Amino acid sequence: MNSNAHNQVSIHALDGIPDIHPGDDLSGLILAALDGNQCSLDDGDIIVIAHKVVSKQEGQIIDLNDISPTVEAQTLGSELNKDPRKVQVVLSESKRLVRTSKRPEQDEGTIIAEHRLGFICANAAVDESNVDAAGKVILLPHDPDQSARGICQDLERASGKSLGVVITDTFGRPWRMGLVNVAVGLANVPAKVDLAGDMDAYGRVLSVTVPALADEIAAASGLLMSKNGKKPVLIFKGVDWQRCESSARDLVRPQQEDLFR
Amino acid sequence: MNSNAHNQVSIHALDGIPDIHPGDDLSGLILAALDGNQCSLDDGDIIVIAHKVVSKQEGQIIDLNDISPTVEAQTLGSELNKDPRKVQVVLSESKRLVRTSKRPEQDEGTIIAEHRLGFICANAAVDESNVDAAGKVILLPHDPDQSARGICQDLERASGKSLGVVITDTFGRPWRMGLVNVAVGLANVPAKVDLAGDMDAYGRVLSVTVPALADEIAAASGLLMSKNGKKPVLIFKGVDWQRCESSARDLVRPQQEDLFR
Repeated sequence: MNSNAHNQVSIHALDGIPDIHPGDDLSGLILAALDGNQCSLDDGDIIVIAHKVVSKQEGQIIDLNDISPTVEAQTLGSELNKDPRKVQVVLSESKRLVRTSKRPEQDEGTIIAEHRLGFICANAAVDESNVDAAGKVILLPHDPDQSARGICQDLERASGKSLGVVITDTFGRPWRMGLVNVAVGLANVPAKVDLAGDMDAYGRVLSVTVPALADEIAAASGLLMSKNGKKPVLIFKGVDWQRCESSARDLVRPQQEDLFR
Repeated sequence: MNSNAHNQVSIHALDGIPDIHPGDDLSGLILAALDGNQCSLDDGDIIVIAHKVVSKQEGQIIDLNDISPTVEAQTLGSELNKDPRKVQVVLSESKRLVRTSKRPEQDEGTIIAEHRLGFICANAAVDESNVDAAGKVILLPHDPDQSARGICQDLERASGKSLGVVITDTFGRPWRMGLVNVAVGLANVPAKVDLAGDMDAYGRVLSVTVPALADEIAAASGLLMSKNGKKPVLIFKGVDWQRCESSARDLVRPQQEDLFR
């Protein structure tokens, strides 16, 4: 098997990341899991982390019993057959609603919202699964880029290696069925790679070829990061990337360039 | 490093796939490249192929000099500053146009079209890069699922292994910047995996969790399938999947469920 670094990428799931609680030392738990999995970090490795463990560590969990829905949330909840307290949390996490809809065959309707960080997704990324009690919902981290940078610095300090971190969430998509993981927080890893000016195989300049590197990595993480939440941390080895100052917000298409809002 | 099959995925790019011409024995060239890369196939391996080599093998290449644009194509070409012959090819490949737009700062405008196979993408997937002569454009394969099945059967017969094939194209996306590879043709690999009824880590039933497995694989392929077109074939090992009759058209969101057309 060809072992050239740029001809091979490997993805490793870490077993043994425990259930995370507010204030836990997430970086320390990742380092312990690396040890437990006999996985050592190399320069250029990218650590991919499901946002939920970061959100939990940061206490980004809302008890719906603490929420008093506004009239707006009550009205929308009634239209969509959604818990108005959950609708209130979605509204609080959103800059604006992009679409709301309920088809007759749906039990609960759909809210597509622009999250306060710019991401457009269902329910402003407010999620009920993998929370340790019914009646609680989990938000994105307060600033997922900052969370990624903090974890990356901890792991770089402990390992002495140059690393990247991608924090992911699972989003639906227009036009295509099924969910894919996308990048919501980045440390060092470029959001996208501008190949403009590079040549194709026939020596013609590629004008608009901008692979969304961080989303390629995030989507790949879905192959091992089982949705049941038990493998929230993966290590990617062999990805060809250049360290840079980056932000997952660079993956948000500016409104004036977006034909589908 | 943990070698448990479900804790590790590896992706291998094959060097040495030559430029493909109509009528070439693509399966034979892939088998030769596997040999040349000392890469053997195992049960459960998934072969990921950039559609362009399949399209070329099938002769899905149009010489724009052979195209006489209709008045509709001429008008739209003029509005969007696009070669009307290319617009004509886009129209011929489309069921309908979803959006057309040209912003002042764009040299050439954008056509988002519903491809005859249902995929919604820019220019109905008609592409100018990686064709061996200016003035030619390349289409999707005539029936990418059928192409995938044919190649998969050839590779299974030669190797004696149970395999899957994913044929990819590179699409832009609403809401998010950058391009990702998506699945446009499938053999044996499920388009998506229905986890409904499975439990999350806290024993609650996951109601709407449907990872788009084939698109996760396609997006991951972008990490090695450099856009310059020289590594169009990858081997994925270690993916957890169940063989089934599948079609990439199962990834197309039905119009009545799509809030963004």
